[in-house]
Amino acid sequence: MPRIVTIGAAQMGPIARSESRPQVVERLIALLRQGAATGCELVVFPEATLTAFFPHWWIEDAAELDAWFEREMPSNETAPLFNEARRLGVGFHLGYCELVEEEGRQRRFNTAILVGKDGQVIGKYRKIHLPGHAEHEPWRPFQNLEKRYFEVGNLGWPVWRAFGGVTGMMICNDRRWPEAWRVLGLQGAELVLLGYNTPRHDPTTPQHDRLAEFHNHLSMQAGAYQNGCWVVGVAKAGVEEGIEQIGGSCIIAPTGEIVAQAITAGDELVMARCDLDAANPIKRNIFNFARHRRPEHYRMIVERTGAEPPA
Amino acid sequence: MPRIVTIGAAQMGPIARSESRPQVVERLIALLRQGAATGCELVVFPEATLTAFFPHWWIEDAAELDAWFEREMPSNETAPLFNEARRLGVGFHLGYCELVEEEGRQRRFNTAILVGKDGQVIGKYRKIHLPGHAEHEPWRPFQNLEKRYFEVGNLGWPVWRAFGGVTGMMICNDRRWPEAWRVLGLQGAELVLLGYNTPRHDPTTPQHDRLAEFHNHLSMQAGAYQNGCWVVGVAKAGVEEGIEQIGGSCIIAPTGEIVAQAITAGDELVMARCDLDAANPIKRNIFNFARHRRPEHYRMIVERTGAEPPA
Repeated sequence: MPRIVTIGAAQMGPIARSESRPQVVERLIALLRQGAATGCELVVFPEATLTAFFPHWWIEDAAELDAWFEREMPSNETAPLFNEARRLGVGFHLGYCELVEEEGRQRRFNTAILVGKDGQVIGKYRKIHLPGHAEHEPWRPFQNLEKRYFEVGNLGWPVWRAFGGVTGMMICNDRRWPEAWRVLGLQGAELVLLGYNTPRHDPTTPQHDRLAEFHNHLSMQAGAYQNGCWVVGVAKAGVEEGIEQIGGSCIIAPTGEIVAQAITAGDELVMARCDLDAANPIKRNIFNFARHRRPEHYRMIVERTGAEPPA
Repeated sequence: MPRIVTIGAAQMGPIARSESRPQVVERLIALLRQGAATGCELVVFPEATLTAFFPHWWIEDAAELDAWFEREMPSNETAPLFNEARRLGVGFHLGYCELVEEEGRQRRFNTAILVGKDGQVIGKYRKIHLPGHAEHEPWRPFQNLEKRYFEVGNLGWPVWRAFGGVTGMMICNDRRWPEAWRVLGLQGAELVLLGYNTPRHDPTTPQHDRLAEFHNHLSMQAGAYQNGCWVVGVAKAGVEEGIEQIGGSCIIAPTGEIVAQAITAGDELVMARCDLDAANPIKRNIFNFARHRRPEHYRMIVERTGAEPPA
C-alpha cells in the first residue's frame, strides 16, 4: 500500500503586536479548512505561531514577558483550533512559546507540538539551537533575544510514528545544523516538520542579507537529501512590526527537491502529496547509514563544542 | 593584510585504461602551468588522478590490482609534477591510490596529498567514506568496488596551516556526509580540497541520475556554508571507458555560493581569488560553534551507526 500523506505548509503573514490570540486562531482555522478542502491530512504552522515574534524586543517586565507565553495547550483561546482539527479530521503542527512549571521553577521554551487528526497532542519538541543573544544590544535595529527568553530544549529530538511514517520536528535555527538532522535521521525520520521566523536582515552580517532565502533552502534541502526525509518548512513571513521576514515556505522531497513553495509573504497554503516511500532508495543506498557511516571518526562532534584551529 | 589565495580547480577529462602515468602527468603539468600563468598559488587535481578509475572493474589478479596503486609518492613517474611545482612555485592537491606497508602488511587506501610550493608533501588524507560494495555484482553495468579495493582511511580528517589558512581535505563520497565537514569545521578549516569520480548513473537509484550534479553541488554548498569554509571540488569528468562521469568542478565560497565552475567534461582549469577572511562573519556569528552548538544533544551521532526507527 503506498504511503502517501497529503500535507499542507501553512505560511502565516505578519502578526501585529496588537493582534489577539483569538484573531490569530481564526487565521489558523481558515488555513486548516483550506487544507481539509484540498485533502490534507496534516497542516504545518510556523514557529511561535500565536503572536508577533516578541524576541525582537527588549522586555524587562516579567509580567509583560510572560504574556507572550502559553501556560497550557490547548488553552481556552487555542481550543477552537484543536476542535476544528478534530471536526475536520486534519492533524497539525503548531509552534508556540511555552511557560511551564518544571523542576520546581518556571521555565520558558520555544516549543512545537504535533497534533493528531483526533485533536490530541502526539508529541512535543523544544528548540535546542537558540540563536541570537542574551543581553540588550541597543546598536541593533531590532533584538534577537532568544538566548534570553528561552532555555535550551530538554527533550532531544524525539520521533513518533504518526501520519503513516516516522515523524520528527525541529524549529527555525535548528534547520541550519546538520547535527539536528542527523539525530532525526538516525531514528529513521521520514518526515521532518519545522517552522521559522527569519528576518531578512541579520545585523551581524548585513552583507549576507541577500542570501537569506538561499541559506534557508540550502540547509533544508541538504538535510532532506542527506537523511532521506520529507521536510515541511513553514515561515512566518512578511513585514511584522517593521521587521521584514523571509517567506519561502516549502515542502522538500527526500531527493532534496522543492516540490511546493509559497509565493507570497502572507497567509498562504501550499501542499504536496508526499510519498513516504520515496525516501527508501536513498536510505537503502547512498545514505545507508549502517553500511557507510564511520562514527569512530566522528568523535570530535561530541567531544568539542567550539572550533579549535591548530596552533 | 588580506588573506587572498588564488586557487585553480583542475578538472581532468577521462583517462583511458591504456593511458600511462607519464601521459597523465603531462596533462597535470599542462594544467599546473595554466594555473601558474594565471597567478594560482595552489592547483587542485581530482581523486585517483593518475589512472582510469579501476574500482569500476572486477579485478581478481593481485598483481593486476596492485598495478593501479602507487608505492611511493613522488615516484619516478610522478616526480616531474613535483619538480614543475617547485620550479613554478605552485602548490597542488593530488588524489591517488596508495599501496603501503603498514602494521606488517600491505594496505591499500584512496589517498590525497597536499604539496607545498616547494614541492614537499605537507599532509596526507585517506578516504573514510568508501562508497559502493565489496563483492562482485554482475547485474551492474559497471562495478563500484571501493569497499573491496580500499581500507577505510586511518588518519581522521587532519588540517594543516598552509596556503595562508587552515586547510583540510576530503575525498569524493566524503562530501555527502555532514560529519566529515563538521570534523574539519571544528578544527577551524578555512579551505577544504576534494576530488571526485562520480558516475552519472547509479545502478542502485537510476531514478536519481538526473540529480547527480544537483546532489554534488548541494552537498558541497551546504558543507561550505555550515562550516564557513572555502571549498574546491574537482571532478574527473567525461566518458571514461564507457562510463559517463559528472563534471561540475567548482570553487565555493563560505557563503555557499559557487564562484567558479567548469563548463566542459574535459581537462579544464577554473580559478578564483579566495579571500580566506570571507569566512569570518559566518564563523563568528550564525555558525559560531562555541556559542550555539549543543553536543550534549548530539551523542546519537557517535553512539549509533545505522538508523534505528522506533518500534
